[in-house]
Amino acid sequence: MSKRIAGPEIEHLIQLLAKVPGLGPRSARRAALHLINKKEQLLAPLAAAMDEAVEKVRVCSTCGNVDTADPCTICTDPRRDGATIIVVEDVADLWALERAGAMNARYHVLGGTLSPLDGIGPEELNIKALIDRVAAGGVGELIIAVNATVEGQTTAHYITDQLDGLDVKVTRLAHGVPVGGELDYLDEGTLSAALRSRTAF
Amino acid sequence: MSKRIAGPEIEHLIQLLAKVPGLGPRSARRAALHLINKKEQLLAPLAAAMDEAVEKVRVCSTCGNVDTADPCTICTDPRRDGATIIVVEDVADLWALERAGAMNARYHVLGGTLSPLDGIGPEELNIKALIDRVAAGGVGELIIAVNATVEGQTTAHYITDQLDGLDVKVTRLAHGVPVGGELDYLDEGTLSAALRSRTAF
Repeated sequence: MSKRIAGPEIEHLIQLLAKVPGLGPRSARRAALHLINKKEQLLAPLAAAMDEAVEKVRVCSTCGNVDTADPCTICTDPRRDGATIIVVEDVADLWALERAGAMNARYHVLGGTLSPLDGIGPEELNIKALIDRVAAGGVGELIIAVNATVEGQTTAHYITDQLDGLDVKVTRLAHGVPVGGELDYLDEGTLSAALRSRTAF
Repeated sequence: MSKRIAGPEIEHLIQLLAKVPGLGPRSARRAALHLINKKEQLLAPLAAAMDEAVEKVRVCSTCGNVDTADPCTICTDPRRDGATIIVVEDVADLWALERAGAMNARYHVLGGTLSPLDGIGPEELNIKALIDRVAAGGVGELIIAVNATVEGQTTAHYITDQLDGLDVKVTRLAHGVPVGGELDYLDEGTLSAALRSRTAF
């Protein structure tokens, strides 16, 4: 805004809100006004929740998940099958798999994918800790659930190479037609993979 | 999420973020992860800005604007023309007019519109303070910039009635074709108004 219409505190709040994914400069203003109008019901509790997150959230030293406990809730949950580890690129993927609710396994968060052009080598990722976890024993299966991108697949191959000689079954997610997906909109690679991996009716 | 995958603090943060306009349950999760990943650069400053807003933001006792000062920055700005007051429904409208930057006036925020069905009468709005402001003298023009809705126009008529006997010029925003607007998409009421208020080329 060209002219000063409010104290710098409100402008500052709007500028920071505009950096939150999903909000832009216009929706940040709207969000700020809404928060200010609901000061007691929303702004104060949200500020307190953020303060608490700043203070308490940490990265799990076992798996790389974010949580307020270390080791994280998943790593310490006795009902989880510790013999199965799902390897994901980041915490968002872990949350997505948990929403699917298909497995009761533990996780390992890599923190990205190998990308030599961006200077991201194996040391920048949480790979050594994964190998150590497997080498320590007790892991029967490693499900590599990285994205089906070139970087993801390169990372999967690198991890598989590093696991050579260790007694662990390594699997990956199936390729195929998304549930609810229409063939007409799918790329040739996915259709070919779905045909190759066809199953009996 | 069905199973516990993180401490309650993170779930609580996501639930509160989902109440921010512009964010829903899915984007709130994404926003929470982004904030946690940028703890020092974004989460901590945003939490501090919100804490400051909770502590400092108040409603201007003169005009109803929200600011960290009372009277607000606009009411105390000596470069503003205090003889012109723009009457708006809420602070979002004030901000929108300030972005347009067309007037260097002061404001009066009503806090809504008359709506008998919702139990909003003149006492629920910031109308008496407006009449007092005009009665105190020094106001030459009152620009009623409420929305062009039935409730807005009802409120405008009520205010005009209340000002009866006071020496002030009352004006309202022009109706017409939005700048950049296409006639084909405009409703008949707007087109009729634009024709009636036609100006010389």
